[in-house]
Amino acid sequence: MRAAIFRNRDLVVDNVPDPKLAAGQVLAKTLCCGICGTDLHTAKFTDDFVERSKKTNGRWTMDPSRDLVFGHEFCCEVVENGPGTEGKLKPGTRVVSMPLTIADNTVLGLGYNNDIPGGFAQFMPLSERMLLPVPNGLGADKAALTEPIAVGWHAVQMARLGTDDVPLVIGCGPVGLSVIAALKVKGVRPIIAADYSPGRRKLAEAMGADIVIDPAKNSPYETWAQHATPTGYDSSRFAQLFNLGTKMRPTVAFECVGVPGVIQQVIDGAPASARVVVVGVCMETDRIEPFFGILKQVNVQFVLAYNAQEFAESLHLIAEGKVDVTPLITGTVGLVGVKNAFAELANPEKHAKILVDPWK
Amino acid sequence: MRAAIFRNRDLVVDNVPDPKLAAGQVLAKTLCCGICGTDLHTAKFTDDFVERSKKTNGRWTMDPSRDLVFGHEFCCEVVENGPGTEGKLKPGTRVVSMPLTIADNTVLGLGYNNDIPGGFAQFMPLSERMLLPVPNGLGADKAALTEPIAVGWHAVQMARLGTDDVPLVIGCGPVGLSVIAALKVKGVRPIIAADYSPGRRKLAEAMGADIVIDPAKNSPYETWAQHATPTGYDSSRFAQLFNLGTKMRPTVAFECVGVPGVIQQVIDGAPASARVVVVGVCMETDRIEPFFGILKQVNVQFVLAYNAQEFAESLHLIAEGKVDVTPLITGTVGLVGVKNAFAELANPEKHAKILVDPWK
Repeated sequence: MRAAIFRNRDLVVDNVPDPKLAAGQVLAKTLCCGICGTDLHTAKFTDDFVERSKKTNGRWTMDPSRDLVFGHEFCCEVVENGPGTEGKLKPGTRVVSMPLTIADNTVLGLGYNNDIPGGFAQFMPLSERMLLPVPNGLGADKAALTEPIAVGWHAVQMARLGTDDVPLVIGCGPVGLSVIAALKVKGVRPIIAADYSPGRRKLAEAMGADIVIDPAKNSPYETWAQHATPTGYDSSRFAQLFNLGTKMRPTVAFECVGVPGVIQQVIDGAPASARVVVVGVCMETDRIEPFFGILKQVNVQFVLAYNAQEFAESLHLIAEGKVDVTPLITGTVGLVGVKNAFAELANPEKHAKILVDPWK
Repeated sequence: MRAAIFRNRDLVVDNVPDPKLAAGQVLAKTLCCGICGTDLHTAKFTDDFVERSKKTNGRWTMDPSRDLVFGHEFCCEVVENGPGTEGKLKPGTRVVSMPLTIADNTVLGLGYNNDIPGGFAQFMPLSERMLLPVPNGLGADKAALTEPIAVGWHAVQMARLGTDDVPLVIGCGPVGLSVIAALKVKGVRPIIAADYSPGRRKLAEAMGADIVIDPAKNSPYETWAQHATPTGYDSSRFAQLFNLGTKMRPTVAFECVGVPGVIQQVIDGAPASARVVVVGVCMETDRIEPFFGILKQVNVQFVLAYNAQEFAESLHLIAEGKVDVTPLITGTVGLVGVKNAFAELANPEKHAKILVDPWK
């Protein structure tokens, strides 16, 4: 089969072996697959990714000297139910799956594994028990957005949201936009979002942000604090600490940038008792000032991915029209277009999510 | 009146003016007052403390070129109800108070303010509405421990404890010992505690730790993880992340050291989904690796001080014998002994809490 392969630190199109099915696996035809920021990061900072992966006790085992097929945001079609399957979903059924497959009772990640092709290949070996049929005749392009929407949906589940929370989203790339979509579903308002890019600010509005801020012109943290603070609020530390002043609305920030310095920036800008949900994946060492986190009694929740329930919920949010992913899809390419798409995604003005159709 | 004064970066005994009472204040005779680690830190790293205090928008305004009287862990006796008081507590009543006093509707901190003497002076101006009468004939020495016990009690309130939690306490100085006492009241077990000092490990046992570890010999994190992990638990990342394995007991660590590097050390040693409560006050820049916090979905809760309810509860925990502070009190000095006590407290083998009796 054909695939876009990460080979010698480059992206090339070539043949790779068709997937061999383990017990319980289904041969699935890839209809389309989104390019994720983590794919870009891994292609650019490969050694760093591998180095850090090693420190996770072999949980990721990518070998950059071997071929690798990226792609973990996919929608597929069942082609053949393999050995040991129950055949619940007939060939032709459109499906999505968390980017995990099970072989010999081992759960393996899809998209960063040298031995299993990800979604930038024409076929994938998926586990029957992981498959979710796509409902409501939803198109494969939109269904492929289940994975990135699940990232935002999970982050919002982990935020311990109350109905009175004032949410702030720092960074409106695909992760931030997904968080905005999830917050809109939750009905927590106003959703305040900030990004330096005019294009992304426009997307933030399209996904449901109520107030969109250019940090080059205005402080998103000031707007955030203003909405959290009723008139006449006593903002002194002691008043806040000992509940002597008027109550503030609770505040939660979603850090969706993932570069060093942003976590501390959010802590510096946060009202007392703010929660900070770290969704952006910073792979470098970061610096923080614990003293200022302490003074404000900030809570920092690191989050990753989603669980099976959240993934299924995300599919249904899209299928039922509660999350409209249309604005996110800014392009579709065939396998030969993947290399150029990786380059173009560096420009935040031009793209949010580019889908790969391995049959185009 | 006499006081131990922080003057020219030294501790000297001299006369200071008697407190002038603002409306609503009570003249209180200081019976005794504990020396806190923050006092030691401020005396040693004065410029750093002042520098960082400035960044808190004037919430602390200590001027090291002027006299200052430390002391914020005090038990007093009402001498005279001042102007604008209701006279609810008669002269002779033994009282404690949060280290805050109110003058002209402004809440001021006690113990780091050049204009108001702290508890290392013979008298203090306390606000009537902040006073709590000491119950059950509790001695002034034990009542003075209300403040440090409230620090641990608050940290444990902020930890979102469940009955099945496995708690770990890193560092068994006064803060860690206070956290252990609070955990014992909560009945969450086993309480695992770690400190390099044999003396402090002995105190940890006395305060209620079930398992006490010397980190030079064994990893407290391994013991913690073992207690959280039932036999046969699938510890792989994916299994944990997607709830595919056996459930772990929830885990919570209390960072009670407050030096750079410890927060990341706890994250590195933590099981997935652990909560880390940062109680130790680190005043230096710290380094963290967000990637590893993300992989484990760690939650970091910074905490400070306590609220009025927690302070009152701490007094009653001591008075009712639910927290026995006796092991914590390792010495009592008069004003002339304060300077030497500051030096001696640097040795963890010798002391936990030294009380100052300004009349001794």
